[in-house]
Amino acid sequence: MGSAIHAAHATLELLPVSSRKPSILKGFRDYTPDQMRLRLQVIGIFRTIFERHGFEPIDTPALEYMEILTGKAGENEKLMYHFLDQGEREVGLRYDLTVPLARYVAMHQQESVLPFKRYHIAPVWRAEKPQRGRFREFWQCDADIVGSPSMLADAEAVSILTEALAAVNLPNAVVLINHRKLLEAMALLAGVDAERAGGVFRAIDKLAKIGPDGVKRDLIATGIDEIAANRVIELATRTGTPQELLGAAERDLEAIPGGVEAVSDLRDLVVALDEFGVSPASWKIDLSLARGIDYYTGPVFEATVEEPKIGSVAGAGRYDHLVGTFLGRDIPATGMSLGMERILDVIQEFGLLPRRHATAAVVIPVLPDTLREASRLANELRGAGINVDLSLLANRSLGDQLKVAARRGIPWAIIAGPDEISRDVALIRDLTTGEQREVARDGIVDEAKRTVSR
Amino acid sequence: MGSAIHAAHATLELLPVSSRKPSILKGFRDYTPDQMRLRLQVIGIFRTIFERHGFEPIDTPALEYMEILTGKAGENEKLMYHFLDQGEREVGLRYDLTVPLARYVAMHQQESVLPFKRYHIAPVWRAEKPQRGRFREFWQCDADIVGSPSMLADAEAVSILTEALAAVNLPNAVVLINHRKLLEAMALLAGVDAERAGGVFRAIDKLAKIGPDGVKRDLIATGIDEIAANRVIELATRTGTPQELLGAAERDLEAIPGGVEAVSDLRDLVVALDEFGVSPASWKIDLSLARGIDYYTGPVFEATVEEPKIGSVAGAGRYDHLVGTFLGRDIPATGMSLGMERILDVIQEFGLLPRRHATAAVVIPVLPDTLREASRLANELRGAGINVDLSLLANRSLGDQLKVAARRGIPWAIIAGPDEISRDVALIRDLTTGEQREVARDGIVDEAKRTVSR
Repeated sequence: MGSAIHAAHATLELLPVSSRKPSILKGFRDYTPDQMRLRLQVIGIFRTIFERHGFEPIDTPALEYMEILTGKAGENEKLMYHFLDQGEREVGLRYDLTVPLARYVAMHQQESVLPFKRYHIAPVWRAEKPQRGRFREFWQCDADIVGSPSMLADAEAVSILTEALAAVNLPNAVVLINHRKLLEAMALLAGVDAERAGGVFRAIDKLAKIGPDGVKRDLIATGIDEIAANRVIELATRTGTPQELLGAAERDLEAIPGGVEAVSDLRDLVVALDEFGVSPASWKIDLSLARGIDYYTGPVFEATVEEPKIGSVAGAGRYDHLVGTFLGRDIPATGMSLGMERILDVIQEFGLLPRRHATAAVVIPVLPDTLREASRLANELRGAGINVDLSLLANRSLGDQLKVAARRGIPWAIIAGPDEISRDVALIRDLTTGEQREVARDGIVDEAKRTVSR
Repeated sequence: MGSAIHAAHATLELLPVSSRKPSILKGFRDYTPDQMRLRLQVIGIFRTIFERHGFEPIDTPALEYMEILTGKAGENEKLMYHFLDQGEREVGLRYDLTVPLARYVAMHQQESVLPFKRYHIAPVWRAEKPQRGRFREFWQCDADIVGSPSMLADAEAVSILTEALAAVNLPNAVVLINHRKLLEAMALLAGVDAERAGGVFRAIDKLAKIGPDGVKRDLIATGIDEIAANRVIELATRTGTPQELLGAAERDLEAIPGGVEAVSDLRDLVVALDEFGVSPASWKIDLSLARGIDYYTGPVFEATVEEPKIGSVAGAGRYDHLVGTFLGRDIPATGMSLGMERILDVIQEFGLLPRRHATAAVVIPVLPDTLREASRLANELRGAGINVDLSLLANRSLGDQLKVAARRGIPWAIIAGPDEISRDVALIRDLTTGEQREVARDGIVDEAKRTVSR
């Protein structure tokens, strides 16, 4: 291919060979075909579930004005990729999918009908220190209901969450449920003033990780006295049935407005979960669940798997004020976010989904002049819905072509050499075992549908 | 929802309401559910075609080192979004999908089997001046074959291109075919030296837009004398059958090494297109096709629609040296890029694909205490593969709920009021005409499959 003229031209246009060592930024990943296939398969499963429930897809830009992205809390700003663009605008890469949704709803309120049920599956970027399982670019998978203050919406979020996790065969997932105002009320009851409530959430959130003693130390470190700290921990670590826990909370918190409201919300939620047919084994009330995100205003959820020790795989919660920060008037909202990356890891680690071959068969032209017949065969198989590669190595030996196909992990080969073509047959060969058999030319598509097709 | 405690908390965490007017960067877009549904539908069609032909999906990071992204030509640097990240690395947003592919192949050569057929459907970013139909964020849809020097690979690219355009009902698409070395040879024949060849491509590329006189002016402006300019234009604007054009080119260029090679490539390509069953009506040789990209080394392609006046919808070409700039040794490659955004515009403008409803029906609980039955009904319909929204407005009137569903564009409603439930029936209502009929409860799923299901 390299004529003298072209070589000169290429040298002019391309940088010298040795100057660019191929490399990739830390915290970023290529997805190989195997990884990408699984990713697309799981995205497909989640999309189907969302759409079955009447959710609709949207997408928003990867780049937004920084003042939009910092919507929820300034503290995330240092974790955002941001820069001045060519027009000297301060822009940043999308940090999550919830703030863009709030901005979207505020901008599209004219054409949107509430409640608006949308899902959004897309990458986000965070300038965090990369570590095992934590990346600077990762996908989020969110489904939210905007415009409904009803606990029916929260119950639907939980219902879809459990359905989505079951659909990828994730075992023993349990959705923990709490209410942001219950936590606030518990903090108040324990004698913590409203300004310090945030510190309580952050401390309580670490209960599973650092234990009650650790949480107590953290609480005291934020200026909460020991008696109040003990009381908060006591309230948060209560166990029992939903009825018992809500009954006790109601008695404790009857004098605290937010507490009564929270218990009432959770009672409605429990009824709705039952009406929606969500199995009682798939959720429980956990008064220590805090979730770190500041914008939550109502029920919060977290799906976890304890056995095997997988941990959190999805989160959710109600945020009735976030849209209001863009719109100037509040629109209630609730939703859920499936932890795509963690779920993909777990699916691979535990082999939760059957591995699918992208390409079911390769059609091999044994000599260049069988190409026309091989191509015709491949097109017939494709027409029958089978993914078929036509080997482009017609000038190489049959053995070479079979070897390449096997190395690519293709399970079947269909071989049409001159001899087979003259006798109006083809060979179907199992590339794992090496076994092959002859099939009449006009029966190949049917035979392939039976054996080759996934 | 807004207790005093929470309101105080929210004010602390969220910026004041009026400070953030919702807005979006120029050249960027939200995709509404309607737009996103069409986008996902078309992506699904293209994916299916790529996979039918044995192509496999990959993805690469949105952010890469700038020295990787500037792989092909420094001139694009000013059109790239780039900045110093937190680690003082010069990083940029992906400008296309071809340079990342070359970098990918160089980094994954150990685990990849050649020829490697991959497809990649993802957004890219360009800091260009936005104008009608040109955005700063847009999706590309590429399928490439890496590792085959054979014209079979180029023929497969053209074959898939025509199949993909046919699958979205794009009328009268024709793939124009030329060869980069044929252009170079024509320039040499006309007396243009190798250094000025690039200027010839850029001028010739504008033939359709500015006509022969405009091209001639451009050529003369780049220092090419009038006689040579006339000769280049004469060669490039020849018309005839593929055989006539290639025969004439062969005679003209027999003394120029690249020219002979190019004619030989195109002859092989024409044979392969025939062997692959590509209709002769769907392609033609066009010696004026230049394509602006510097890294092309062999055949170049462009799919255009002249009637209706749609213009270019896809491009393709061989680039045998690009992988080499990362790897240190050349790996031949060829491929195609479907102009997703243009194709989506055209599909919408001409209504080329049937519009699909995301949500086929809404199940309406007429009073809150029919919710359990409505939810059961919705879940049965979902189990039958129908996308069903359960109205969350159980506390609103039936009329209100119907109105909301109709405004959302949902075509059917299934109504289960207390009376219907007691008589073991439900109503199926056409939300466009207002007609409704009663169906026995145990026949609803079958009835919905017949009428409601898309």
